[in-house]
Amino acid sequence: MAMVCLSDFEAYAKKYLPKIAWDYFAAGADDCTTRDENILAYKRIRFRPRMLRDVSVMDIRTKILGSEISFPVGIAPTGFHQLAWPDGEKSTARAARAMNTCYIASTYSTCTLEEISAAAPGGLRWFQLYIHRNRAASQQLVRRAEASGFQGLVLTVDLPYAGKRRDDVRNGFRLPPHMKVKNLERAFEVCKMSPLDPSVTWNDIYWLRSLTCLPIIIKGILTREDAELAVGHGVQGIIVSNHGGRQLDEGPATIDALVEVVEAVRGRVEVYVDGGIRKGSDVLKALALGAKCVFIGRPALWGLAYKGEEGLQDVLRILQDEFRLSMALAG
Amino acid sequence: MAMVCLSDFEAYAKKYLPKIAWDYFAAGADDCTTRDENILAYKRIRFRPRMLRDVSVMDIRTKILGSEISFPVGIAPTGFHQLAWPDGEKSTARAARAMNTCYIASTYSTCTLEEISAAAPGGLRWFQLYIHRNRAASQQLVRRAEASGFQGLVLTVDLPYAGKRRDDVRNGFRLPPHMKVKNLERAFEVCKMSPLDPSVTWNDIYWLRSLTCLPIIIKGILTREDAELAVGHGVQGIIVSNHGGRQLDEGPATIDALVEVVEAVRGRVEVYVDGGIRKGSDVLKALALGAKCVFIGRPALWGLAYKGEEGLQDVLRILQDEFRLSMALAG
Amino acid sequence: MAMVCLSDFEAYAKKYLPKIAWDYFAAGADDCTTRDENILAYKRIRFRPRMLRDVSVMDIRTKILGSEISFPVGIAPTGFHQLAWPDGEKSTARAARAMNTCYIASTYSTCTLEEISAAAPGGLRWFQLYIHRNRAASQQLVRRAEASGFQGLVLTVDLPYAGKRRDDVRNGFRLPPHMKVKNLERAFEVCKMSPLDPSVTWNDIYWLRSLTCLPIIIKGILTREDAELAVGHGVQGIIVSNHGGRQLDEGPATIDALVEVVEAVRGRVEVYVDGGIRKGSDVLKALALGAKCVFIGRPALWGLAYKGEEGLQDVLRILQDEFRLSMALAG
Amino acid sequence: MAMVCLSDFEAYAKKYLPKIAWDYFAAGADDCTTRDENILAYKRIRFRPRMLRDVSVMDIRTKILGSEISFPVGIAPTGFHQLAWPDGEKSTARAARAMNTCYIASTYSTCTLEEISAAAPGGLRWFQLYIHRNRAASQQLVRRAEASGFQGLVLTVDLPYAGKRRDDVRNGFRLPPHMKVKNLERAFEVCKMSPLDPSVTWNDIYWLRSLTCLPIIIKGILTREDAELAVGHGVQGIIVSNHGGRQLDEGPATIDALVEVVEAVRGRVEVYVDGGIRKGSDVLKALALGAKCVFIGRPALWGLAYKGEEGLQDVLRILQDEFRLSMALAG
Repeated sequence: MAMVCLSDFEAYAKKYLPKIAWDYFAAGADDCTTRDENILAYKRIRFRPRMLRDVSVMDIRTKILGSEISFPVGIAPTGFHQLAWPDGEKSTARAARAMNTCYIASTYSTCTLEEISAAAPGGLRWFQLYIHRNRAASQQLVRRAEASGFQGLVLTVDLPYAGKRRDDVRNGFRLPPHMKVKNLERAFEVCKMSPLDPSVTWNDIYWLRSLTCLPIIIKGILTREDAELAVGHGVQGIIVSNHGGRQLDEGPATIDALVEVVEAVRGRVEVYVDGGIRKGSDVLKALALGAKCVFIGRPALWGLAYKGEEGLQDVLRILQDEFRLSMALAG
Repeated sequence: MAMVCLSDFEAYAKKYLPKIAWDYFAAGADDCTTRDENILAYKRIRFRPRMLRDVSVMDIRTKILGSEISFPVGIAPTGFHQLAWPDGEKSTARAARAMNTCYIASTYSTCTLEEISAAAPGGLRWFQLYIHRNRAASQQLVRRAEASGFQGLVLTVDLPYAGKRRDDVRNGFRLPPHMKVKNLERAFEVCKMSPLDPSVTWNDIYWLRSLTCLPIIIKGILTREDAELAVGHGVQGIIVSNHGGRQLDEGPATIDALVEVVEAVRGRVEVYVDGGIRKGSDVLKALALGAKCVFIGRPALWGLAYKGEEGLQDVLRILQDEFRLSMALAG
Repeated sequence: MAMVCLSDFEAYAKKYLPKIAWDYFAAGADDCTTRDENILAYKRIRFRPRMLRDVSVMDIRTKILGSEISFPVGIAPTGFHQLAWPDGEKSTARAARAMNTCYIASTYSTCTLEEISAAAPGGLRWFQLYIHRNRAASQQLVRRAEASGFQGLVLTVDLPYAGKRRDDVRNGFRLPPHMKVKNLERAFEVCKMSPLDPSVTWNDIYWLRSLTCLPIIIKGILTREDAELAVGHGVQGIIVSNHGGRQLDEGPATIDALVEVVEAVRGRVEVYVDGGIRKGSDVLKALALGAKCVFIGRPALWGLAYKGEEGLQDVLRILQDEFRLSMALAG
Repeated sequence: MAMVCLSDFEAYAKKYLPKIAWDYFAAGADDCTTRDENILAYKRIRFRPRMLRDVSVMDIRTKILGSEISFPVGIAPTGFHQLAWPDGEKSTARAARAMNTCYIASTYSTCTLEEISAAAPGGLRWFQLYIHRNRAASQQLVRRAEASGFQGLVLTVDLPYAGKRRDDVRNGFRLPPHMKVKNLERAFEVCKMSPLDPSVTWNDIYWLRSLTCLPIIIKGILTREDAELAVGHGVQGIIVSNHGGRQLDEGPATIDALVEVVEAVRGRVEVYVDGGIRKGSDVLKALALGAKCVFIGRPALWGLAYKGEEGLQDVLRILQDEFRLSMALAG
């Protein structure tokens, strides 16, 4: 089976992953409208291709928060990579480093952040976190991320409660017994209810700021009003995201929301976007609309499911080639 | 079979109800365009989700005409509940009371309004009626509703004649012999033609007003002009409704009509809406567009068909949970 | 099989007519886009239903060019009715008279206009004609129509050449040997090429006018410019028509064209419309947009195919009932 | 099987061509969105048909760059005609001459341009070329085209690199061993990388101009900005084209781009269009929107696949008949 485009990896993963894992990765909230809109919205955006420009040499490197990456596609935070490949997030880290791009490790990893770090020393990595009811636990994660050499903190703000993903409810989704949310093992062993704190507000950004000198990137912004608030509260970056359509259904597609966020931010902080990237031309569209870089979620998992580190590199390489070609053809 | 969302109850009802009953409940007029539009119109409305608001405590109670209900979803008037569950409207009344919400009992119930009342004493209930050719019959129903403790009268105005529901014609739909429209048994025993009066006009609202001190809610309004007339004729509430798409086909979806009605009413009376509610997020959209409360029709019948009182409670509980979650995720 | 709506007759005709006849009646030009658009365009038009109007008595009679018909639906000119029913146009004439409406008999009938007239004396009938290369032949038809008591002449102007109907080409469509275009038998026995004259212009209206005192109705107008010309050339009526989508594909749907024609005509002559009428509510929409009356083409053929005169009456009666109900429900 | 419209030839080709050849001809870039949009965009354009104009005599001849052709449809440059028919481009040249229209022979022909010329002496032919890394090779092709009597040079500018056509990658598409890109055999025998030069800019138009007195037509323009540049650089004609949707996906449909190009050019040079022409009415639409002539790509290949020279003539004749009929019916 030739792996020609990202859909090939999707088809592979759907075929070979256990149903419960596939369903978990594929899940969207409610009717999955927003999940699917993320993709459809890209299709509605059209290029105006220009001709006869010298495209013999193209530089597709970029910098995010000062660090150079080989092309503007990073790995978005997603949980439970061991569901896709035995080595889990360690493979992800190695693939990202091999491709010289940024990997945002999730709090809900099946490896500890120390293991992730050790697997690919020197790679550019950010750590994704929530604010927990137990603030000490959050603080501890920040410390560990700093100590392990993560270079940014990605605060996810669109999950005061988990969205309703019907298939996960039907499947009674839970991790198999041999996998663990290792980052949280010690901190929450006695916590019975959801560890995340739904009472978090913008003031908690100041609290997080007080804990660390790492740049703070806020993930989950979809409106100009919240973008303005994010800049006002001193974050270093914004990821326009709807959590892959897994939280509130029937909100905007991220590429549509990107436009209003970029306009509101007016260059004061870097803006990124995730959700719905399936082709190199999608990357080009996002950049043309003001994103500094995009992040991929499910496609990274499909790559892992295909061949672990190597499969994820295949996915990234395809996106890179397609992105370069789109740039050339669009002039 | 896990009952995760309202569509699961729909699938169950379609599978287990007698075809003639399913067809009757599902029927829309003509091509069923409006019936389906009621649902599609909700999907076209998009949220602008806001983040980092304290959503740890949310109060979803509301008041309709002064009575508190546990959340803004009531039971719309639909006929013939015994087609869905042996105990018929008695089960409906018990479920509504258990969930602390409002049940609008239909004139075309298969239990008398006295039986309904006796089944769930103390529950909040309104009584739905038409104006009959035989005004004395209407007057008698008003008296009985008052005597049985109903707290509002819902006058349906979109049925001067019954809409053309093709499947019902094909099926030769009629109630099985052991079921009766009990409320009308005595009043109309000699009436050969349709008991409803197509010559009713706005002036008849004054006549109805003269009969009772109960609040009058008018059901079936779809335009700003009629909303203005309704307010001018002294009703206490308006239910924006197209009778579930069972009357005139190819009119507006109710959620679209709601916007112009709310604008015309300018807060002078309470406005509600029914038709097309399938998820908690639909409830949130209706409220955001100015409805004080929504009413569900077919989903209540699916709940009854599943497990009677208990099944209807399941339906209401799912909507309640989804509504609360949508509120939290939308900020 | 219950015949509840016009689609039931369509399904019957599709099932029981010889394929070559069904294909001929169903055919649209090229991709059949306009044929299908005629129907879809009605669906895009939405009612704003008004409530609480006295709809106990409704008068659905109308007058076209001074003659009263029982409701505003006539029979459009279509050819070869014997393909649908042995008695052909004689049955059509009888059904139209029985329902007290207008029948436009086609030049391409399989009965002579004298036979049609004799079959239903006293019925309101118009005669449809083209302008032929052989003007004497046209003149002769006019004389015969006058002599047979037809009360109007419908000049079809959208067929300088026949449209390309792919299925007819594939089927090698031609009438079975026992059927004839009887009206033309004598006039064209030596004519080898298409008898219709593609060089006809607006001035030929004056020529036709000079032949007869019958009112002239022009059929096939789709633009305001041509509507203005038609009025300027002294016609008594306009039928907005695209020949059922059988001529130029990808022109406007007739109900859309009706709006601009009515606006241009400003009441100076009567405007009618055909194409896409499938329900009583379509009739109401056409009238609300300014048509004095509508004409049905294919549905009349389906009625004939079902049970001849009786089947066509069924079709008309269903439309009549649906039209009356729509009026009542729309207020 | 009756060949009634171009889709019939498409179905034939799909059925009888080797899969690898069909896939190559049918291929679009990425998701094939633009390939399909080329067709859909024509369907969105609607006629306003006018009646009662004398359409008995119609002249459908036109002139392109001074040469008369029998109707405004030429053959667009496409490669590898031997994949469709053994005689390859020689058959194409003969069919074009027989129908008295223009054939743009591709550099990537499987016959030499001399063979093409010899096959149909006296036919109107243009030669399509790229600018190669090896400029001498391009220069040599220009000389040979001049010497062989080609009357125009079509410079394709939308292929600095080949688009990503997934099926070709999956199939590992390459010519069968007995076919060759004969025009390039000598020039590039040592060239390992793609012979096309991605560093080409507008200045290279001047270089090409300096080589030849033949008119230069630029192919691949999609925006008003590039149209302005093309005129400014002295080309004689512009073909609005997106390479059949085979290069950058999700750019504009050509018929949509035509409008802005025609507007920018303001008659200073001739404008043509290719992509998506499937019916005679499409030709009429393109001309109504300002094209002087259209060119067909895939339909020509389907014609070849059907019956070589004869099949291509069938395709052209159908388009001609449909175009003439559309003109008559549109008035």
